[in-house]
Amino acid sequence: MPDFQLSCPLPITAYPHVLMAHGGGGRLMRDLIQQMFATAFGGQHETDSAVIPTQGSRLAFTTDSFVVRPIFFPGGDIGSLAVHGTVNDLAMSGATPHSLSAAFILEEGLDLDTLWRVVQSMAAAARECGVRIITGDTKVVERGKADSLYVTTTGIGFFNHPLIIAPQSIQPGDAILLSGDIARHGMAIMSAREGLAFDSPITSDSAPVHREVLSMLQDRIELHCLRDLTRGGLASALIEISTSACLRFDLDESAIPIREDVRAACEILGLDPLYVANEGRFAAFLPADQTPLALQLLPDARIIGRVVEQREPLVVLRSPIGGSRILDLLSGEQLPRIC
Amino acid sequence: MPDFQLSCPLPITAYPHVLMAHGGGGRLMRDLIQQMFATAFGGQHETDSAVIPTQGSRLAFTTDSFVVRPIFFPGGDIGSLAVHGTVNDLAMSGATPHSLSAAFILEEGLDLDTLWRVVQSMAAAARECGVRIITGDTKVVERGKADSLYVTTTGIGFFNHPLIIAPQSIQPGDAILLSGDIARHGMAIMSAREGLAFDSPITSDSAPVHREVLSMLQDRIELHCLRDLTRGGLASALIEISTSACLRFDLDESAIPIREDVRAACEILGLDPLYVANEGRFAAFLPADQTPLALQLLPDARIIGRVVEQREPLVVLRSPIGGSRILDLLSGEQLPRIC
Repeated sequence: MPDFQLSCPLPITAYPHVLMAHGGGGRLMRDLIQQMFATAFGGQHETDSAVIPTQGSRLAFTTDSFVVRPIFFPGGDIGSLAVHGTVNDLAMSGATPHSLSAAFILEEGLDLDTLWRVVQSMAAAARECGVRIITGDTKVVERGKADSLYVTTTGIGFFNHPLIIAPQSIQPGDAILLSGDIARHGMAIMSAREGLAFDSPITSDSAPVHREVLSMLQDRIELHCLRDLTRGGLASALIEISTSACLRFDLDESAIPIREDVRAACEILGLDPLYVANEGRFAAFLPADQTPLALQLLPDARIIGRVVEQREPLVVLRSPIGGSRILDLLSGEQLPRIC
Repeated sequence: MPDFQLSCPLPITAYPHVLMAHGGGGRLMRDLIQQMFATAFGGQHETDSAVIPTQGSRLAFTTDSFVVRPIFFPGGDIGSLAVHGTVNDLAMSGATPHSLSAAFILEEGLDLDTLWRVVQSMAAAARECGVRIITGDTKVVERGKADSLYVTTTGIGFFNHPLIIAPQSIQPGDAILLSGDIARHGMAIMSAREGLAFDSPITSDSAPVHREVLSMLQDRIELHCLRDLTRGGLASALIEISTSACLRFDLDESAIPIREDVRAACEILGLDPLYVANEGRFAAFLPADQTPLALQLLPDARIIGRVVEQREPLVVLRSPIGGSRILDLLSGEQLPRIC
């Protein structure tokens, strides 16, 4: 958890809200960068580019904008989510996350205290992930032209292994591993938005997963493909991979972990948990004989299915009572703006 | 100029506008990525990270969000600006720009044809700059929660030289070079917004500058510091550098090029052109004896001042009639949302 006891380092009594001028390239913007971003993230943050030493022969590069509403939710906030999301995208290529950039689009009138909470949360998440936020940008738009703030994080990572982790590397016979319970992040957001009351609130699973991935790589598990389960959830991720690889996946529904409160919330809102996002879970494709070691390293993981010989893009879910269902991409998504 | 004759590759008769579902991780988002972004930018755009081969021992990393209004303006648009801005930030560290990411925040209801124009313009600008847009992201927010679209580009570049191009490298005696006329981008935007009518419209100077920088480096000009003149214009850029370097700069006002129509527009709107942004101009600090070669390589450039012995953060402008004026950071900026 970030430490929220430090008060905002800007003299917020003078300007307690974001002004258009905070994005204007003048003194107020300089103060915001120096006193808020550089304080929280460390480093310079004033030059046009950050310079980092290269490692190895390949680097991974990924970007995501975050527009989640509400910006604070059980288990996280837009800041920690923006760090985890990009760290996890790097991890999904098998790279070791190294550095992030953070570009803010702020709504005029945003409380500087609120911004400071988000920035501190990003800094704490980055520390926890072992990455540094080394460059950034700030723009301000008029009241009503953004809600509170949007954040875009971009990440760089380096590779310590020669594997090509991608759909093309998947082989018939591969096991499909799921790293933990599904649908939690999406339902945490929706429960917060809809004001659903449970005995205890559903908390997002938002978390970095790179250490899980790197531990498997370190133990020489031959990962063929990885995908985090964000927008569109487990089903959409597997359908996309199946389409790219042109291979059929058979899934065992009873092996897919889902918490009871999450399942209940999905039922109340009429949502299919297979299509609801996580922010700290991933699917992995690996040789079947390496699953015992993988399950030892990832105690919450389950083998949920396998890649079959049939060369057609198809994801089939077998239910506990013996029926089967072909999974298809939804047209849009059940839940807007969950990341 | 981008080629706008190609029609939008999505079946826009079915969905001529951006829907919330275009950001939802389902079929509509897949179509948008495959049929629009991958078509315009080339490459895959579907995996979580792009992988690029590293070059040399250091890389430059920079990010900027673009929220310019209007999104189309004389001399450019939000798409070309987002490419030039990030390419130029890389160039300001002396790096050779290599790859960009592009993250879009789209407003529900945006015409897909408009988005396609922007995307094509980005693709054309990237080709012109010799960089590739290799990874990206799309989020959609509700009507009114963004105006049309915001774009965040992040860039990676590599170094072919060992120089540390930064304020700390500036030496007393250095010449201050300005690469061309000032204040043009800001006045192009403002004229478009305010509907100022001139004989011909003021066009933005938005352009990539990395080839100018790299040509100087290739000819062994020992560049000490570079800064592009975006938000806050020439004055803010030099004040920031003077503060970082703790050195005094003396400028000769009569040497600073400014077009007559730009000067006239500034007068009409009551703006000081020294604080108005460019998007294709930069200031360079270099040893005085290397200025003849630099001016030969950059025919539009002028030597506008020098770094004096005095170790204090001060930028002094000497007027043609002998007066002098200390330049100070404005509190905000004269012109909101010009990039």
